[in-house]
Amino acid sequence: MPADVFPVAVGGVWQPSSDAGGTFTAFNPQTGEVLPGEYPVSGAADLEAVLAAAAGATTALQAVPAEVRATFLERFADLLEADADALTRMAHHETALPLTGRLLQNELPRTTGQLRQAAHCVRERSWVRPVIDTQLGLRSMFGPMHGAAVVFGPNNFPFAFNAVSGGDFAAAIAAGLPVIAKAHPAHPGTSRLLAQHALEALRATPGLPTGTVQMLYHLPPELGRRLVSDRRVAATAFTGSRTGGLALKGASDAPSIPFYGELSSVNPVVILPGALEERLEALADELFTSCTLGSGQFCTNPGLVFVPDGAAGRGFVAALAHRFAAAPPGVLFTRDAPPHLEEVVGRLQGAGAQIEAGGRASGPGFRFSTTLLSVPGEVMVQNPQVLGQEAFGPVCLVVLVRGMEGFQAALSILEGNLTGTLYSAADGTDDALYAALAPLLRVRVGRLLNDRMPTGVAVSPAQQHGGPFPATTHPGFTSVGLPAAITRFAALQSYDHVRDARLPEELRDTNPLGIQRCVDRVWTAEPLSQPGDHHG
Amino acid sequence: MPADVFPVAVGGVWQPSSDAGGTFTAFNPQTGEVLPGEYPVSGAADLEAVLAAAAGATTALQAVPAEVRATFLERFADLLEADADALTRMAHHETALPLTGRLLQNELPRTTGQLRQAAHCVRERSWVRPVIDTQLGLRSMFGPMHGAAVVFGPNNFPFAFNAVSGGDFAAAIAAGLPVIAKAHPAHPGTSRLLAQHALEALRATPGLPTGTVQMLYHLPPELGRRLVSDRRVAATAFTGSRTGGLALKGASDAPSIPFYGELSSVNPVVILPGALEERLEALADELFTSCTLGSGQFCTNPGLVFVPDGAAGRGFVAALAHRFAAAPPGVLFTRDAPPHLEEVVGRLQGAGAQIEAGGRASGPGFRFSTTLLSVPGEVMVQNPQVLGQEAFGPVCLVVLVRGMEGFQAALSILEGNLTGTLYSAADGTDDALYAALAPLLRVRVGRLLNDRMPTGVAVSPAQQHGGPFPATTHPGFTSVGLPAAITRFAALQSYDHVRDARLPEELRDTNPLGIQRCVDRVWTAEPLSQPGDHHG
Repeated sequence: MPADVFPVAVGGVWQPSSDAGGTFTAFNPQTGEVLPGEYPVSGAADLEAVLAAAAGATTALQAVPAEVRATFLERFADLLEADADALTRMAHHETALPLTGRLLQNELPRTTGQLRQAAHCVRERSWVRPVIDTQLGLRSMFGPMHGAAVVFGPNNFPFAFNAVSGGDFAAAIAAGLPVIAKAHPAHPGTSRLLAQHALEALRATPGLPTGTVQMLYHLPPELGRRLVSDRRVAATAFTGSRTGGLALKGASDAPSIPFYGELSSVNPVVILPGALEERLEALADELFTSCTLGSGQFCTNPGLVFVPDGAAGRGFVAALAHRFAAAPPGVLFTRDAPPHLEEVVGRLQGAGAQIEAGGRASGPGFRFSTTLLSVPGEVMVQNPQVLGQEAFGPVCLVVLVRGMEGFQAALSILEGNLTGTLYSAADGTDDALYAALAPLLRVRVGRLLNDRMPTGVAVSPAQQHGGPFPATTHPGFTSVGLPAAITRFAALQSYDHVRDARLPEELRDTNPLGIQRCVDRVWTAEPLSQPGDHHG
Repeated sequence: MPADVFPVAVGGVWQPSSDAGGTFTAFNPQTGEVLPGEYPVSGAADLEAVLAAAAGATTALQAVPAEVRATFLERFADLLEADADALTRMAHHETALPLTGRLLQNELPRTTGQLRQAAHCVRERSWVRPVIDTQLGLRSMFGPMHGAAVVFGPNNFPFAFNAVSGGDFAAAIAAGLPVIAKAHPAHPGTSRLLAQHALEALRATPGLPTGTVQMLYHLPPELGRRLVSDRRVAATAFTGSRTGGLALKGASDAPSIPFYGELSSVNPVVILPGALEERLEALADELFTSCTLGSGQFCTNPGLVFVPDGAAGRGFVAALAHRFAAAPPGVLFTRDAPPHLEEVVGRLQGAGAQIEAGGRASGPGFRFSTTLLSVPGEVMVQNPQVLGQEAFGPVCLVVLVRGMEGFQAALSILEGNLTGTLYSAADGTDDALYAALAPLLRVRVGRLLNDRMPTGVAVSPAQQHGGPFPATTHPGFTSVGLPAAITRFAALQSYDHVRDARLPEELRDTNPLGIQRCVDRVWTAEPLSQPGDHHG
């Protein structure tokens, strides 16, 4: 490797990428220009290095006191905050996401908040969910899975979902697993800065094994598959495209290593007739804003909207088309994205959708016009595979459906989604329709919303950022929201008549941590009433 | 199909098996004789029938009040109890498991108890784990996955793990999923009686859709793969062999349908020097009893025992060999099992293990001698793949290890197991060794025991009957223990600003069910303090 190629992070330090995988650069999506800096595409030797380093840290990290991991996460958050200007400037150059409003005031604070929430969970321990059966002498809790966590970050959240700073990273560290981060090649400079802070936080936190953090910038597909199928890996979290995710999942499934993939979602929005009558223009504003936020490059972008056919529905399409046509093209993350979106829009048209506004790639840089399409419900249900596919960008398809049966038919053919939204009238006129349609949507989505757009995913214990396939690969898990997201990296471990002093603190008679535990089916923070008398 | 072939259960009724998949019979393992009754091997038409019936029931079952499902489970338990004599006699004929001690006093009560615990969970609702974030207007809980649950039962628990009456069946119904049970062909008569009671309980419970219960006796492997990969299936629970399970898992993974497989386990038992010195004969009794229980055909059979090399260790092997040699051969479930075990023992010998007692198939019926082998620790660590494999039957391998390092080396190469056990001296002389070894065992097993054999799996909220691969296919789940086992069939569902009256009862402001909920990170059964004020 030439000396001016950026090194990779292995065992807590930067080291030169050791093989001839080649190099790549970042682009400014606003202009299409190459950004300074050459980044390595890792080869087999880098892969072995990160696997060995992470494996070497696995057992040591399990023995590290929770307080140490919590301190690391908080220190990392502090360092990111202190470097907010450089971080957000770099991310803005690499992604074209707005500096103000998005990167500086929203995504970076969300990311540091997430790291601090993870630290809180590590200290507070409720994520281990202690369960005690005093009669049978059995106790259980979640502990760390044995091995490394691999995290693949997506292109669309350079901080909050970055493999080396985002929710999956925080959750894996909180569970007690070393991380092998595979950054997204669309924002390598941002990932490099983030990793730098992670490594500094690591060095500043005595007691953490050096192999707690690894980061690679890029991997050829076959090495990605080798990585997630290596027995030193305990689990993989992936956010990205359906095709890429399923290829990795296939490799990971063979040795039965859990793979949590967030793959695609069109986030259906259902606008009931009463709501449309009540506030058509306001709804058009809301939908337009949500669809064009971040150039529509959100996992929760409302890509598929169902409205009643008829004058109001057509008026809504017209009101939307007016807004979409007047909007500037959205800047996309990568050079390939605009031509790809043109293809997708072409397929939608081929299946019977009609362009109401936009539909074309443009310049300078990587731009695509803000695009609205419409299609009759009867056409939609004939070809849900094509018309229901995700168009990752500022593209929205409005489906005009006829009556209750039309809504029912359209919702019944939906695949799994992250979110599903129902807008209904405030005065109750939509309530019967709501009652008939909500159950159909409920089982097909992770998060069900009323009267608000799905973009914006709060980090909350009550969040579900997940959903049935193909939104994710398992509907029981979430990638956002703590402590739930941590359990993806956890093994359920029970203790059968294990002597009290040998139990983890979380399960001891006296409850030394004072945490909430489920004791004989009741949640309580009290110690056991008669310590010791249950050892049969 | 000839008229005297038993029908299959589809849509809540018996119907003739519709295709030419052939037939099979059951055997009496004690004698090897064919038992009366001809059972169908189902073909593609049966498969489509059960899938269509279960799919047809999916949505209806989601809308059924919890009380109805609870009543069904209790009624089923009552019917089984009332028919205990016929059920246990049939199971005894088909499996040779002891009527007294095992089937009548232990396994059947455990099965009915499990069904009643599931009913309790359905009513009590804590399995849905309600989480409320009042500030963000977000609420989440588990709901049923959308689709059918497929359950493959094993040969070794004709009631408690039977596909149509066992833990997986109870958990799936508790979650709200219709079941397609694939019974084990080694005890079809028992499965038929169980299904008869399930269908009767179904008929006696108005409001349950008829497609709530299906049962097939037998399927060719390719149709098993087709079943678990059908999109109408939400998840599969499988208990059985590693080879069979992995073939099904591969088929299920492709369309990303969760597959929970319990595949194999050797259940390592570590006897520390102080314990051996303290109570050698008692330990030999305990181990012998545990190894020969049910002819060793337990998922939690202690098949691999580590003892310190030296006089005490060799004395222990001799004490065990004496007991094993004096014991009658164990009766196995199937005709293929004794020759298969001979092969396995041959492979163990080939890898350096020495037979101390037994090692041979015998008659009448399907018998195998109670078999003890020993091997030096250094040989074990050279060839863990062969020496660490499960021998499903009355076979135990004792590993003689040298000192702390010997124990560490041996435990470090173990694959994942359901259980791991450490015996240590009561007087504390083993404590340092325990502290060094327990962490190695902890991460490789689901349930860690002190000073008791792993056979016997209590149905408890604190149970973990699961573990790292290859014990199971995901270390975060358990197949025994309620309510945890139910979550395998659950989807995490959140509600974002959904109006209170539209929420499930479990999440409403007033907490009408009076259940425990995690509200703003604290578990409480109280209603929200200021109903309504959190709707932003």
